[in-house]
Amino acid sequence: MPDTWSIVESDFEVAHNRHYEGLMAIGSGTLAQRASLEEGLSDDPQDREYLRIMGNVSVEQFPSFKSRVGTYLPGVVGPHPTCGEQMINLPAIHGLVTYAGGERLDMESSRIADYRRHLDLRRGHLIRELTWLTRTGSRLGVRFDRFISASRRHVMALRCTVRHLGGRPAELRFLGTLDAEVRTNGFDHFRSVDITGQHEPITLAVRANSGIEVAAAALLTSDRGVLWSVDVQPRWVGCRGSITLESGQSLTVDKFAALTSSQHVSGPPVDVARKLVWDAAAAGFERLAAESDAVWERRWQQTDVVIEGDPASQLALRTALYHLLRAAVEDDPRCAIDAKAACGEAYCGRYFWDSDIFMLPVFLYTRPEVGKTLARFRISSLEGARRNARRYGYCGAKYAWESSPSGDEHCPNWQYADHQVHVTADVAYGLVHAHRADSGDREFLRQAVEVLVEAARYWCQRVTYVPERDRYELLMVMGPDEYTPFSRNNAYTNRLAAFGLTAAVELWRELEDADPDGAERVGKRLTLEAQELARFTEVARKIYFPYDPARRLVLQSDDFFGYERLDFDRWWPDRSKPLGACVSQERLYRSQVLKQADVLQLMALFPQEFDAEQMRVAYETYLPLTCHDSSLSKPVHALIAAWLGRQDEALRFWKESVSLDLQPDQAAEGVHAACAGASWQALMFGFAGLSSYMQSETLAINPRLAPDWSGLRFPFVWRGQPLYVDIEPARVAVQHRGRRPLEAIVRGQRCRLTPGQTSFFG
Amino acid sequence: MPDTWSIVESDFEVAHNRHYEGLMAIGSGTLAQRASLEEGLSDDPQDREYLRIMGNVSVEQFPSFKSRVGTYLPGVVGPHPTCGEQMINLPAIHGLVTYAGGERLDMESSRIADYRRHLDLRRGHLIRELTWLTRTGSRLGVRFDRFISASRRHVMALRCTVRHLGGRPAELRFLGTLDAEVRTNGFDHFRSVDITGQHEPITLAVRANSGIEVAAAALLTSDRGVLWSVDVQPRWVGCRGSITLESGQSLTVDKFAALTSSQHVSGPPVDVARKLVWDAAAAGFERLAAESDAVWERRWQQTDVVIEGDPASQLALRTALYHLLRAAVEDDPRCAIDAKAACGEAYCGRYFWDSDIFMLPVFLYTRPEVGKTLARFRISSLEGARRNARRYGYCGAKYAWESSPSGDEHCPNWQYADHQVHVTADVAYGLVHAHRADSGDREFLRQAVEVLVEAARYWCQRVTYVPERDRYELLMVMGPDEYTPFSRNNAYTNRLAAFGLTAAVELWRELEDADPDGAERVGKRLTLEAQELARFTEVARKIYFPYDPARRLVLQSDDFFGYERLDFDRWWPDRSKPLGACVSQERLYRSQVLKQADVLQLMALFPQEFDAEQMRVAYETYLPLTCHDSSLSKPVHALIAAWLGRQDEALRFWKESVSLDLQPDQAAEGVHAACAGASWQALMFGFAGLSSYMQSETLAINPRLAPDWSGLRFPFVWRGQPLYVDIEPARVAVQHRGRRPLEAIVRGQRCRLTPGQTSFFG
Repeated sequence: MPDTWSIVESDFEVAHNRHYEGLMAIGSGTLAQRASLEEGLSDDPQDREYLRIMGNVSVEQFPSFKSRVGTYLPGVVGPHPTCGEQMINLPAIHGLVTYAGGERLDMESSRIADYRRHLDLRRGHLIRELTWLTRTGSRLGVRFDRFISASRRHVMALRCTVRHLGGRPAELRFLGTLDAEVRTNGFDHFRSVDITGQHEPITLAVRANSGIEVAAAALLTSDRGVLWSVDVQPRWVGCRGSITLESGQSLTVDKFAALTSSQHVSGPPVDVARKLVWDAAAAGFERLAAESDAVWERRWQQTDVVIEGDPASQLALRTALYHLLRAAVEDDPRCAIDAKAACGEAYCGRYFWDSDIFMLPVFLYTRPEVGKTLARFRISSLEGARRNARRYGYCGAKYAWESSPSGDEHCPNWQYADHQVHVTADVAYGLVHAHRADSGDREFLRQAVEVLVEAARYWCQRVTYVPERDRYELLMVMGPDEYTPFSRNNAYTNRLAAFGLTAAVELWRELEDADPDGAERVGKRLTLEAQELARFTEVARKIYFPYDPARRLVLQSDDFFGYERLDFDRWWPDRSKPLGACVSQERLYRSQVLKQADVLQLMALFPQEFDAEQMRVAYETYLPLTCHDSSLSKPVHALIAAWLGRQDEALRFWKESVSLDLQPDQAAEGVHAACAGASWQALMFGFAGLSSYMQSETLAINPRLAPDWSGLRFPFVWRGQPLYVDIEPARVAVQHRGRRPLEAIVRGQRCRLTPGQTSFFG
Repeated sequence: MPDTWSIVESDFEVAHNRHYEGLMAIGSGTLAQRASLEEGLSDDPQDREYLRIMGNVSVEQFPSFKSRVGTYLPGVVGPHPTCGEQMINLPAIHGLVTYAGGERLDMESSRIADYRRHLDLRRGHLIRELTWLTRTGSRLGVRFDRFISASRRHVMALRCTVRHLGGRPAELRFLGTLDAEVRTNGFDHFRSVDITGQHEPITLAVRANSGIEVAAAALLTSDRGVLWSVDVQPRWVGCRGSITLESGQSLTVDKFAALTSSQHVSGPPVDVARKLVWDAAAAGFERLAAESDAVWERRWQQTDVVIEGDPASQLALRTALYHLLRAAVEDDPRCAIDAKAACGEAYCGRYFWDSDIFMLPVFLYTRPEVGKTLARFRISSLEGARRNARRYGYCGAKYAWESSPSGDEHCPNWQYADHQVHVTADVAYGLVHAHRADSGDREFLRQAVEVLVEAARYWCQRVTYVPERDRYELLMVMGPDEYTPFSRNNAYTNRLAAFGLTAAVELWRELEDADPDGAERVGKRLTLEAQELARFTEVARKIYFPYDPARRLVLQSDDFFGYERLDFDRWWPDRSKPLGACVSQERLYRSQVLKQADVLQLMALFPQEFDAEQMRVAYETYLPLTCHDSSLSKPVHALIAAWLGRQDEALRFWKESVSLDLQPDQAAEGVHAACAGASWQALMFGFAGLSSYMQSETLAINPRLAPDWSGLRFPFVWRGQPLYVDIEPARVAVQHRGRRPLEAIVRGQRCRLTPGQTSFFG
């Protein structure tokens, strides 16, 4: 039976190191860490400075690194000279260098056998095992077990076990470090580094160029009375210990470390870090692990999807879900999940529509409270969105294409920041989605209405009225397809903008009904009047939708088919590279090429508005023009293909999506978090055939299993009621684990699900 | 009688210092220098480092400086981390600090009377006179006279005269420096600085980050036996001298300096610089001045335009011509004239279409040999244009929007580099223009054909064939109007591209006729076949031209009138700022706003193709939509208005154009060299009514004097024949100063101009 709970690396190759650093990243949401080796690699300094210039599509070249150490507290950001405000790579806390007889353990040059590293997805432990044949003639069995505590979210625990398996006695030395010799995208964010080493634990505090203070603390213990001394350097501090191990003996060294910041605690971060480490060491490795593992067990009870008959997809799906689970900042609405899930610097830790459209639904239907916290990010960052709007000369709120935690726009390339305006409507879609998941939360409704009204105000100014046709148009916009950046009337954007306007009015009405006092307060604060609501409705109604009734084709935009056809065979002979790396941006921008599904993405969000024929025509028209350079393209193709009954195609697209980060070279600069969420959605809404809140008020389950799957089982929450769905080719079983009876339509049969009971549908 | 040969500053104000530094810049083409004060200002270091991020339209903010010292050898360039390859601000050679009784002469804090600084346009001397009331009680008359030799083009001479006008004896000290404590756009280009101070002259050599070596040398002399000692510092070197001056005495200190580079000389630049300075000192200040002044006298004989009855315009025009004359690198086709005429860093010293379309004609009709050298820049940089084409996936040649001397594209903003493709056709236009000025130069013709064919090859790939209409279109282009950046079928670009294709064929035929052997060699080298020439003709013929016959309106582009009208009163209340500083780029890009004339610019280049009615309709349609944020907008409006007989409007536009750099705050980052050339063209082709070579094979003169001018007199060259034209309201006199009789049409009268004679036309 293949292990579908572990990502395994069986041979260490330095060329794949960064891939595994991203793929095996661990974290608690609050604290995230790339899976860098405890001892590091030689000739691989982490403090190299360079000037990153955010490139155009696909042309950016990164410096070559053996490894990219990465330690993040999402929300701890600072200005970069060319990239904008970015998530800072904080001092590394995982370092534990091991020497035997003067030889430094080095994955490239040491003699190593029986190597195996794996990430235990079920518990979030990163485990490395190897046999070290030292130059001085010892055989040592070495094992590292490392995790970020899911219950004490600022704390990392690391256990290194050394068993002497034979040969000469080994003089072992250890150096456990806190290390500020790191850079973020080549830039040094630390204005000062303060180190204390006199008393345990050692601490290292930095002040970032944004003023945020960050503190790390660490403490090392062992089971054999190793004596520790402290080594203080200008930018790092370490505990050194040594001991001689003889054949048959074994040794355990535990490192407890904590990382916190003035964003997270009110007192001096260094005091808090020190206390966290003391407490962790007092609890000990086993108890910390047990606490954390229990949290992970509950998470998986709420989210694990079992795919019968396809272990490769099973592992890939768990990997995808793992990264979303470890990256969600469950208790802090000041952060969303960034595009790389806090394990890489490619997108500077910023928040995109990825969060609202692709990741949020995963949580809304499995862990709704976490989902709501995620959705609240757009509420907590409303002021930033207002600033963005003002900066462009608008009133209201314009959400950033690349949002910092404050909501301010930090996208360094203007074409996305200025023109990919659909994000403001995607935010509205996400908030409505979250509201429908739990419509009884009045506070959330009040806050969401504020966002929606401010966003609607933006749309009313962003549209252009065309008197000859008595309609509103949206000029110079970039839809999801970023290779067609300056469109007139992009269908996705126009429809979403109309949605944003309508939703503002609808949720306002709901608020008036449910909470008249709250509505009055919100209305006053926003100086909202009936006239303005009427204007929202009017604009929404008159926003033009590009559609060719003769062909039943939703047009990506007015101008799309006026561009030049691109001969893929000529311009894209090597499909292992993205098309964007083969063709100049100048040519892409005037070609009929889709970076990702644009019209199909619209249909995925509003399936009830399109019939199967329209979906088929769109799918068949655009697919030959689509290069899937975006990781968000294939999952939505999987979804629509499943709806169209093209299960083979759907499965192919889905497998390529869900396993993307498992491919060599992927994940090196961070995992594709939105693709993970989109893959879950393609599975749930496509193959399992669930309806979404945005599609239907009543739960519907209409499975379209992939041909080689014998079953699909998963937990699911519908409007606060937990369910467990078990799909087999011939029947669907729905277990109601909640407390209120539920109307549903399963395989077309309208039914009533009863709490505590399992219903079967043939 | 107002002095129309001098720009005068009568009060020193630090706020205007950078304006005058640009406006009063001096130079020899080869060497250029901003008019910075010899002694500098306090608290104004020139080595401040900062990271310049080239901004979007109008949003870029420069750090505040009291002064920007600038010393350039056009062609000496190096890579900047964010700006691309730029012209390097080289070690300053003008420094001469003066002390009296320990007080440093300081324009901000010293007691100064009778201040007057002026730039003598006729001779290119920068002269400053003042009375210094020193703190120790001396009255000193101080005069600085500085020029770059027009005959010894690497040499600067500076004379400081001090007359003791009364009061206590003055202990004078001088420090003449060579100073590498400078930066270019905040960046240090110097990899090494080597100084010799043991023997006169002092030298300072730097190696730029491009590998180019630059050397400066300087020598100080005086007429009263001042003893000089040398002060060597890590990045600067100076000669210090002192003397006591008593009432009634006077002193002259001369500084001779030279600056050269490995781009300019074959031996070690420092040896050459040393020799240049020795020779200059041996010649002495007066002889150097006489030599240089004589060169300037000849220049003005060939170019000066006398405007009777409008001294303000007279001065402004001479200022404009002065900057073109001092910036032209007369003997080196490896350089053109950069957008700021080598006296500022705003555009990094790069070459734009400014050179081909706006500056080149001034020289072609006044100093044709200089014009041809300027035109040859596009021949010498052909390889770079080929590299640009390849980088985009084209064969042939694509000229850079912002060209470095090598021809490579260094525009940091992709929208211009990728989409403002008309520059490649502008280059063709310029080369054809230069060829017609002197069609007997076979070598030039051969080289021009090579450029034209390579450019035509680019166009054949850049166009999109639309089979339904059997025509070629140009998608996603930016015309001259940079506020409409992604047009479909921009009239200017489409017509110019067709011109470029046709011109390649025509000049090829001319070459075949005139020089069959040369044609064969060129044809072989280019593997040019008849079939390809036929293709050029075919594409040129079928390039679509956007035109509305009903309104007789040349459409700026297919999409232009689909954008939103912008209410200037609402969005642009403060007309002292550019519109682009008031409205976001995002709004500009979707508005019917012209940054500069686009269709009118086309009509200015091909007036013979449009009738007066089409010009009138275009003028009246686009003017209300034009904000003139580009300095190139008003001159072409002046030209077209003059053609349309709207002389008052024409004069208003022209005065605003020609005097642009004289306005406060202008010229601070360099003068508007293209606007200078465009203003000359509006005067010559508009008011004086000359035809251009591109318009007519026969010289035509059809004056349309501005109402308040009583006369216009100027030298002029037509196909190698020098003429002098004297226009009065009632008559035109044309003096033929050449050797071959010339057909002409003056005031509609066809005539024959005879060498040595003056013809009058009533």
